[in-house]
Amino acid sequence: MTTLQLPTFDDVRAAAARLAGHAHRTPVLRSATADERWGASFFFKCENFQRMGAFKFRGAFNALSRFDDRQRKAGAIAFSSGNHAQAVALSARLLGMPALIVMPADAPAAKLAATRAYGAEVVLYDRFTEDREALTWQLATERGMTLIPPYDHPDVITGQGTAALELFEETGPLDRLYVCLGGGGLTSGSALAARALSPQCQVLGVEPEAGNDGQQSLRAGHIVTIPTPQTIADGAQTQHLGKYTFAVIQRDVADIQTVSDAQLVDAMRFFAERMKMVVEPTGCLAFAAACADATLPRGARVGIIVSGGNVDLGRYAALIAGA
Amino acid sequence: MTTLQLPTFDDVRAAAARLAGHAHRTPVLRSATADERWGASFFFKCENFQRMGAFKFRGAFNALSRFDDRQRKAGAIAFSSGNHAQAVALSARLLGMPALIVMPADAPAAKLAATRAYGAEVVLYDRFTEDREALTWQLATERGMTLIPPYDHPDVITGQGTAALELFEETGPLDRLYVCLGGGGLTSGSALAARALSPQCQVLGVEPEAGNDGQQSLRAGHIVTIPTPQTIADGAQTQHLGKYTFAVIQRDVADIQTVSDAQLVDAMRFFAERMKMVVEPTGCLAFAAACADATLPRGARVGIIVSGGNVDLGRYAALIAGA
Repeated sequence: MTTLQLPTFDDVRAAAARLAGHAHRTPVLRSATADERWGASFFFKCENFQRMGAFKFRGAFNALSRFDDRQRKAGAIAFSSGNHAQAVALSARLLGMPALIVMPADAPAAKLAATRAYGAEVVLYDRFTEDREALTWQLATERGMTLIPPYDHPDVITGQGTAALELFEETGPLDRLYVCLGGGGLTSGSALAARALSPQCQVLGVEPEAGNDGQQSLRAGHIVTIPTPQTIADGAQTQHLGKYTFAVIQRDVADIQTVSDAQLVDAMRFFAERMKMVVEPTGCLAFAAACADATLPRGARVGIIVSGGNVDLGRYAALIAGA
Repeated sequence: MTTLQLPTFDDVRAAAARLAGHAHRTPVLRSATADERWGASFFFKCENFQRMGAFKFRGAFNALSRFDDRQRKAGAIAFSSGNHAQAVALSARLLGMPALIVMPADAPAAKLAATRAYGAEVVLYDRFTEDREALTWQLATERGMTLIPPYDHPDVITGQGTAALELFEETGPLDRLYVCLGGGGLTSGSALAARALSPQCQVLGVEPEAGNDGQQSLRAGHIVTIPTPQTIADGAQTQHLGKYTFAVIQRDVADIQTVSDAQLVDAMRFFAERMKMVVEPTGCLAFAAACADATLPRGARVGIIVSGGNVDLGRYAALIAGA
């Protein structure tokens, strides 16, 4: 068994330098209402205001920035039906290289259109008859393109970590940092930043109840794989952590919590009504967990990563109109 | 006819000093999509993220901060069913003084509750049988309270002007600044800031088509009063400008434009879908006008004041779900 070379905080710093002038430095918002209601001081790092609407731009742009000349010429390939697709497409366009995204033929038309609008070539596959990974590898080999996985890659992890880096630069040390957890790219990157900039800070990953593979993995001490979970948090429907993300999480994350879809909707409504922000279901995981966390000390200084805001408007309207 | 003593940019600077540490310094957001689609460089000053969800906090807090000891003891009184009510209520609470808000008995329950939640006493009146102004003056006299009008007051105007002051501090000179126009407090305050910090900048007020009393006034050269307009922009349903606001607008504002309710809904959807922000209909006026403005030079640097985000969630959901 070979030892993994884990990414470090220096790599997060280097990623921040690559992203300067390309990624937005997103605002850290406060809410007096949230502070009063839940008895803490919340600092919301708003990655829903990031380019293409989610933190995913950071990791993709960082990874593509590190391509050598040969890689740049052939371009990047990714498979994703979510934010990672748009992140790779936009990053490739900004860096002047080709991008090919493998997406399911039945993906929402809006997501296909958005990915194409960023200039990427889209190859469709049939989710029921074709093997996505095999198809992607075949295309990558044929065209000499470099595959950028959505989370389990050191450059993706350290790119995602720049959001927490910026948060700590603005707030100083925090007592807790809640981060949504899908494949673990954002959580592990955030943990690297916290470990260096606020070593006393407890980093907590948050998953949907229906998809608690990360929580199971942390408790089992090895990566646990689950069936694709049913949850409105479509960005956290991953089946398992990656080897890099799991290793960092195992070392640097205090615990993994879960929240229900109903709690996500409550948080989404709070964000809309009180903070005037559109947040996608996955982006509500961190705050929903903090609100329900009985172990949160009164008056704690709490960082919340609001990860993204990409949600179909009609679906969003239905969710916030609610009961 | 006495000459009005108009507020100055020095007064805006003084207001900014009073607001420091009390009002949020709201972020200035960018949108690559908006820049591409409309061929300009937009800078969005996001007052929907201001305390109580709208710029109105700035003017109210500035006005109440200037009370002398006797005024503080008796407190502030206002009549409003909108953002000004909550702005005065919250400012009074923060400054430790009583507040009384006169509101229509049929105001939305959520607005009554929000105003009371900020600690204000609410007195209800019947819109069909009672005279709001007479009632308010009677209560003010009985209790020795100081009336804070929603817009036509130098301290309110200069407080509102601090949003544009912050915008120019962050962006430097701009070519255009679009501002929503109801009673003219925000527009005149913004014009004072632009005149001092970006003298070449054209300041444009924007009204709903159905309520173009400001446009009529500017063209007629005197204040024109109209019946209460029917528009979804409930913050711009004023019937006429004030004497202070009109005098500043006449001197410092280049023109007043109008937009339809349908254009407001389009802008609201753009803000939600592409910028992940909840913006109330009135808060969409400035951007809706800029998008439709055939006189906007290609590549212009354009400031947009996004004035607020206070809108009932159910109503908001219905508006963005749309056709």
